[in-house]
Amino acid sequence: MKIDVKQDLLSLNNAVAAENRALFNSKNLFTINIMGSPGAGKTTLLERLITQICNDAVVAVIEGDLATARDAQRIAACDVPVIQINTDGGCHLDAEMIAKVVKGFDLAQTDLLLIENVGNLVCPAAFDLGEDLRMLVLSITEGEDKPGKYPTAFMAADVVVLNKMDLKDYLDTDTESLIADILAINHNIKIFSTSCRVGKLEGMEDLAAYIVDAMRLKKQGKIKRG
Amino acid sequence: MKIDVKQDLLSLNNAVAAENRALFNSKNLFTINIMGSPGAGKTTLLERLITQICNDAVVAVIEGDLATARDAQRIAACDVPVIQINTDGGCHLDAEMIAKVVKGFDLAQTDLLLIENVGNLVCPAAFDLGEDLRMLVLSITEGEDKPGKYPTAFMAADVVVLNKMDLKDYLDTDTESLIADILAINHNIKIFSTSCRVGKLEGMEDLAAYIVDAMRLKKQGKIKRG
Repeated sequence: MKIDVKQDLLSLNNAVAAENRALFNSKNLFTINIMGSPGAGKTTLLERLITQICNDAVVAVIEGDLATARDAQRIAACDVPVIQINTDGGCHLDAEMIAKVVKGFDLAQTDLLLIENVGNLVCPAAFDLGEDLRMLVLSITEGEDKPGKYPTAFMAADVVVLNKMDLKDYLDTDTESLIADILAINHNIKIFSTSCRVGKLEGMEDLAAYIVDAMRLKKQGKIKRG
Repeated sequence: MKIDVKQDLLSLNNAVAAENRALFNSKNLFTINIMGSPGAGKTTLLERLITQICNDAVVAVIEGDLATARDAQRIAACDVPVIQINTDGGCHLDAEMIAKVVKGFDLAQTDLLLIENVGNLVCPAAFDLGEDLRMLVLSITEGEDKPGKYPTAFMAADVVVLNKMDLKDYLDTDTESLIADILAINHNIKIFSTSCRVGKLEGMEDLAAYIVDAMRLKKQGKIKRG
């Protein structure tokens, strides 16, 4: 019975996600669903990415959190439109939440919609939002054993960003074994290494260039998800 | 309809948790439900705690993960009985999973049952397992904004362990603001600071002494949850 309920919810979500995707495609909008554990550094990565990418794309952001508007306030300071979704205890965003709030943006004038999901390495992976790209942010402070222990998140991702690389020398994390573990689960995944800390920025140009390329390929009709 | 289903599941869980609690009380067993984000350092904390506490208590461990028996293998190397639960994608342990596996331990000969939940700062907090104490492990690498953004986990906890304190000098995390944020949500919470890294152990004696004290108070009938 539990499983039936879950499947019902997922079917409903997938139907709305397909509508979202059709809307985004009609507006030529590229969309990224950003997932990862609490404290993986998703919001800071967004702040740095926006700075890096704002000459190439008009950006809008959706922030997902159980509570508070803290992340939206940080993103608003980057001078891009942002909408905060509070899930009120819920462990992930779903397609319907996105459908409700995207009306608040001028989608025709937006190139790139960045959606930061609730910090959770489990539940968000099951819920398609209608995005073009799924990006998983993993802090290397989390240890090299995470891919095997949380396989669904890695199976669902197109891109993994190994973040907080500035801390590498102070950790015991074996990043080679981490990367091998990721590729063993999903050998098509694209892996980037970043540090988002002020004064120790790393990997931002590569990641931004990859996103700008993916946006262009979509506009040329060369990639299509869903 | 979503809410009804959730409430049904929670009522069912609470009924089984009450049975677990009655069983644990009848065996004079003290039980801790250990929660936290992926990579907060829960398993390493358990390894250190077992070493610290094994002269004062006979310990058994339940490990919860989506997949793999990696954590159970690490705990087995500490020479205590351990059972791994794989949730097969599920985002938290529930009382029924615990009821099924505790039969595998000699409970009458056990003083302390440590249950490491799935790494997730959201879902485990809603599911009572029948435990005496709820311990939340938060790595200071996760940043000072987590309590406000994940309030349910902090509201449900009796103890918060601020872990990975050995990294404090390399982070921008404001631990004073972090502690203030925790106490604003739950002013009854007990806070410990630890580092579990080999050669940089910190706070283990205090945490172990607190647990041993809590065990003794329970045996004397002075604390009772549920």
